[in-house]
Amino acid sequence: MDSSSPQDNLISAADRDGLYRTIFSRRDVRGQFKSDPIPDAVLSRILYAAHHAPSVGFMQPWNFIIVKSKKVRQRIHDLFSLAHQEAAAMFSDEKRDLYNGLKLEGIMESPINICVTCDRERTGPVVIGRTHISTMDLYSSVCAIQNLWLAARSEGLGVGWVSILDEQKMKRILEIPDHIVPVGYLCLGYVTHFKKKPELESAGWLPRLPLENLVYFDGWDKTLPVEDSLLLKQIREDQDFPVGSVRE
Amino acid sequence: MDSSSPQDNLISAADRDGLYRTIFSRRDVRGQFKSDPIPDAVLSRILYAAHHAPSVGFMQPWNFIIVKSKKVRQRIHDLFSLAHQEAAAMFSDEKRDLYNGLKLEGIMESPINICVTCDRERTGPVVIGRTHISTMDLYSSVCAIQNLWLAARSEGLGVGWVSILDEQKMKRILEIPDHIVPVGYLCLGYVTHFKKKPELESAGWLPRLPLENLVYFDGWDKTLPVEDSLLLKQIREDQDFPVGSVRE
Repeated sequence: MDSSSPQDNLISAADRDGLYRTIFSRRDVRGQFKSDPIPDAVLSRILYAAHHAPSVGFMQPWNFIIVKSKKVRQRIHDLFSLAHQEAAAMFSDEKRDLYNGLKLEGIMESPINICVTCDRERTGPVVIGRTHISTMDLYSSVCAIQNLWLAARSEGLGVGWVSILDEQKMKRILEIPDHIVPVGYLCLGYVTHFKKKPELESAGWLPRLPLENLVYFDGWDKTLPVEDSLLLKQIREDQDFPVGSVRE
Repeated sequence: MDSSSPQDNLISAADRDGLYRTIFSRRDVRGQFKSDPIPDAVLSRILYAAHHAPSVGFMQPWNFIIVKSKKVRQRIHDLFSLAHQEAAAMFSDEKRDLYNGLKLEGIMESPINICVTCDRERTGPVVIGRTHISTMDLYSSVCAIQNLWLAARSEGLGVGWVSILDEQKMKRILEIPDHIVPVGYLCLGYVTHFKKKPELESAGWLPRLPLENLVYFDGWDKTLPVEDSLLLKQIREDQDFPVGSVRE
């Protein structure tokens, strides 16, 4: 990684390197949660980080339902257990054993769960930037989740996104109105450690794809103009950059 | 903001503060692009940041179509112009004048456009975590976009997300196959400056919502257990935190 500085004074090269370390060491945490409480000062900061995500037409369509009640979390966990059984039946025999051996959520072990929602009617029917692509408001709430996730990592907090759930039943448990979409259900807490690699990569479920195979030019699957082959060369040279930057 | 340190050694308190500055000063850039080329070393880093987003079932469903061709960008710009006209007709008279005065894209002025896609068939029909919520793969590509956006900001690069487009026509221009979804079309480049606030906020289109009104407890619109009212007090106290952290 070169030491060239960003072109403005607000974000330093050191800030930039810290951002990359945060991005590359962020994990989907399932089995490493500790029950230690999260201070309000920390929770406030990460909620502000989420609230300053980009949103289509400045809709800010999100809400944050903080779930601490053990009773409510147990009901969500029951939903997970049911869906998890249904999911297991969908895999081939070989994959099913591996699937059943995976820890996929920390709903009860983490001190706080947060459901991040999208209010599709927040600013009326016509929204700048949502006129032609109707999913843009949902995507805004996803950006809020990713901001929250990175802010949490920078505070030493793990986040796990639980998506093995029946969405309609979850809405009933959390009393979410019809026009509100529960975009993500997150578990949040301090951790014993962050794993060096994503768990599904370490478990041999799927490999990390080589980035150079995912980059096209001027159209799908398009070969390169000569000057751009230098970018692919750079990407190949940088392949250990994320790994190197998070080595402790 | 207190000076408490994150609980691991990898991310320092200074890194964390840099992340917050990056998050709070990120902007959707439309009118401030410069044509300066983006070095391959920089582009490689921000693509790696995107590639290390969370993905459901470790699918990594994204591709990155880098669009430099002026001819291709002109065709995308023509799509924007058409959709922009259609969109203007949807607003009330009062809002339409304001809408028509907004600069909403930098397709031709920025040196690079990037279309971030989602390959919904990448790892077969059954994906861990997508068995019950089918949109999770699209959300993974959105997380990649948000990582890319923050990495770009930390490199002094602006990003603008153009969503006023007919998606099907865009797919034809970029020769994107049926089963691939173009999740986001981004403009990327160095900028003359980053605005202090989102443009739609400054223009009086919509106000920033108070975060404290967006936080619920244990269910939609639910009032607070006594101990959690301290969190709302903290949120009120922190209301200038993002602004303060990006003050130059």
